[in-house]
Amino acid sequence: MPQMLDKIRALVGSEGVLTEGANHRTTDGWGAQECQASAIIRPANTAELSEIMKLCHESGQKVVTHGGCTNMTRGCVAGEDELVISLERMTTIEAIDTTNRTMTVQAGVPLQVVQERADANDLFFALDLGARGTATIGGNIATNAGGNQVIRYGMAREQVLGLEVVLADGRILSSMNQMLKNNAGYDLKHLFIGSEGTLGIITRAVLRLRPKMPVCTSALVATDQFSSMAKLLNHMEKSLGGKLSAFETMWQSYYAIACHSSNISNPMRNPISSDMSNNMGKPPLPDSYPFYILIEATGAHQESDSEQFLQALDTALSEGLIIDAVLAESGKQQQAMWAIRDNIPALMSYQPMVLFDVSLPISEMESYLEKMQQNLNAISNNLFVGILGHLGDGNLHVAVQLSEDSTAAKKAVEQAVYAPLEHRGGSISGEHGIGLEKKPYLHFSRNEIEIDVMRQLKQLFDPEHILNYDKVID
Amino acid sequence: MPQMLDKIRALVGSEGVLTEGANHRTTDGWGAQECQASAIIRPANTAELSEIMKLCHESGQKVVTHGGCTNMTRGCVAGEDELVISLERMTTIEAIDTTNRTMTVQAGVPLQVVQERADANDLFFALDLGARGTATIGGNIATNAGGNQVIRYGMAREQVLGLEVVLADGRILSSMNQMLKNNAGYDLKHLFIGSEGTLGIITRAVLRLRPKMPVCTSALVATDQFSSMAKLLNHMEKSLGGKLSAFETMWQSYYAIACHSSNISNPMRNPISSDMSNNMGKPPLPDSYPFYILIEATGAHQESDSEQFLQALDTALSEGLIIDAVLAESGKQQQAMWAIRDNIPALMSYQPMVLFDVSLPISEMESYLEKMQQNLNAISNNLFVGILGHLGDGNLHVAVQLSEDSTAAKKAVEQAVYAPLEHRGGSISGEHGIGLEKKPYLHFSRNEIEIDVMRQLKQLFDPEHILNYDKVID
Repeated sequence: MPQMLDKIRALVGSEGVLTEGANHRTTDGWGAQECQASAIIRPANTAELSEIMKLCHESGQKVVTHGGCTNMTRGCVAGEDELVISLERMTTIEAIDTTNRTMTVQAGVPLQVVQERADANDLFFALDLGARGTATIGGNIATNAGGNQVIRYGMAREQVLGLEVVLADGRILSSMNQMLKNNAGYDLKHLFIGSEGTLGIITRAVLRLRPKMPVCTSALVATDQFSSMAKLLNHMEKSLGGKLSAFETMWQSYYAIACHSSNISNPMRNPISSDMSNNMGKPPLPDSYPFYILIEATGAHQESDSEQFLQALDTALSEGLIIDAVLAESGKQQQAMWAIRDNIPALMSYQPMVLFDVSLPISEMESYLEKMQQNLNAISNNLFVGILGHLGDGNLHVAVQLSEDSTAAKKAVEQAVYAPLEHRGGSISGEHGIGLEKKPYLHFSRNEIEIDVMRQLKQLFDPEHILNYDKVID
Repeated sequence: MPQMLDKIRALVGSEGVLTEGANHRTTDGWGAQECQASAIIRPANTAELSEIMKLCHESGQKVVTHGGCTNMTRGCVAGEDELVISLERMTTIEAIDTTNRTMTVQAGVPLQVVQERADANDLFFALDLGARGTATIGGNIATNAGGNQVIRYGMAREQVLGLEVVLADGRILSSMNQMLKNNAGYDLKHLFIGSEGTLGIITRAVLRLRPKMPVCTSALVATDQFSSMAKLLNHMEKSLGGKLSAFETMWQSYYAIACHSSNISNPMRNPISSDMSNNMGKPPLPDSYPFYILIEATGAHQESDSEQFLQALDTALSEGLIIDAVLAESGKQQQAMWAIRDNIPALMSYQPMVLFDVSLPISEMESYLEKMQQNLNAISNNLFVGILGHLGDGNLHVAVQLSEDSTAAKKAVEQAVYAPLEHRGGSISGEHGIGLEKKPYLHFSRNEIEIDVMRQLKQLFDPEHILNYDKVID
């Protein structure tokens, strides 16, 4: 290893190789420390990374790529025999084209910086999630991040027009397309989006920007049954004529905790929720209802947008789809509602706990949750279960308390939550990805041939298995 | 070959093997007959196709997959040594889930049938193009079709949630995901979407449906300079709060022909345009303006949508972004406007002609068109050039008349149109794809490493090179 580091220093200079405290870095959104790497390599540009990877490829040196390390799947864990490649020095916004509505960035730029630069140009970058302040755009793309606006704008994948990737062997695959439409051969970027750093290292991207929607209307509503939530979703989508931008659901078990408890330390390092939740104040709605939905619409016309939003809620009330509702009448109230939605850390009081990220067809969701609860009851009748999620995307986050802090207890709960997905066409990961954490359960969501083809792709793009070794697939 | 056909007959029965008149089939949207295949194989289901492909893989038998054969890139051309695989017997809509808003279909279902079934369920399938009546959903997905609503809903790729593909070796890759979010491993469907049948044969798909937008507002407007069109696009997107669904541009050279000439036989077999254009009637706007734009917005609120649409046009007029405008006041007028946009066949009077499908950043478009025209003038000063396209997507269709019906004349024009794309980050194909037609020019839009990686993928998925041999890449 020391020899290898000398060779790398020769390529990138001493600034490019960090050994002091390398293994003190946290590697995920929970702030866990599992970085045993003896060094963190920090290329200044794509060319440097290319040379580094040629070296690693030749010598079979394993690497783990780090963006903001806010993942929740142990996707950035690095062992003693691995080197960390950090994009922390590649943080330049290279260009913004307000006519074509694109932004060209290096992979190390934090998501929030992209959002703010777009906003400063009267444009909008349609990806948002709690870790926005720390997560990098490269990490968002490598994991195909989801977040709060997927229902209207799609996931990270849909925000990417072009991509530059350094392959395992050091080749630079530059596919920096800037158009909405380009059918000149295979669209290679999709191979790397969501592959969690196992097929290549994303170094630059061309991002799609959208027109900024000046008007944002939000409400927190309550329903008394699951079926009402699904109907409400279709009702709001139809009534708002395409303006629905968020439909965030919270089960009572989550809402009751999230709207009261104060979020002292927020592992997701979310500026908004940590600010707000230190003074959560009086809940917008009482915590006695079975289901809560945070509904948001964005548009360009203050008056008609608000009217139509209210009209849609009135109809929902009169049809019994919702039983209570409160409209956000200020940005502060809007933030307060989001603070509840983002107050995941409130669940920390139920440690040991596992936070799941399942997705399944909305039409299968109710029966799935019943079966899951049965399975959990079979383990123990008094495990805390907190549920929230992006219903419109079929994506639920389920927090389950463990009866004890043991691998066995964790495995039992994972089995209970994942098994009922298999025959409902569900997924063990809607947006967080697989990493190391969920790899043992991939077979619940992918069949043998799918996994075989994934292995073939891994073998093709990383024959020495040096990229994020052992993650996602074996 | 006869032996092979006997083996296949044994698998799929005589109904599955068509030899009579096989080589009389047209293979593209122009109705050209380049099918020399001695037989057309028509599997009844995925299992049959799997068996057929195992056989072809073992014996190195080349196949060309046919959907509706409305492509414009000679992507369905088949030689005497090739078998055609037609999905014409796989036309079942297997399921529609109105809660989850998905439709599960076999690949042979025509696009228009999908649209109508969605509509009958008060939902909307967000892909539309002229050949809707003949093109199949499998073909649309295999070529990542674009069309008229990409600016709002994206291309075919964005309408596909899950995919089933028969691989070259007969393995059935079933990845029939039904969720908007699924990050459980690599998203394999993207490999096959847009690969033009060279990596696998698409047999089934789960399609994303959207809420139906009951209100559609359209106008035809005129501008006097290109820069106004780009500004108008941003203005309308912003003013309409996300409701803009089409922004179709026509240069005078195209409009003048399309709004007068009557479309006798429409190779694109588009019911709407062929109906309408037989009685085009008086043009909505005089043909004396430099640029025309067909603008369409869809939403849920008749009154406010129309108001906002008119308001946006008024502002555009007062700011000089447009110099004339006519609002469609009935479905008939709306159709008449689209008939002009879809009257591509009007260009037939300029045969011999080549229809291009380039895309490039909007900010590069004006300088590109100037350079292209210079190049064409260098060939001949009186070649007819007709331009129309999806400006919002950076996609232009350019029709160029040839000085004579010769390969040399065609090559010269292709060079003139494609060369200026290279240094402007443009693409030789926005939506039509590559097929055989554009393969020689792929290097203008893709660099060596991109093409190498495409070859690696082809080698991985089709080592015997039996799938749509010789198309897209060498």
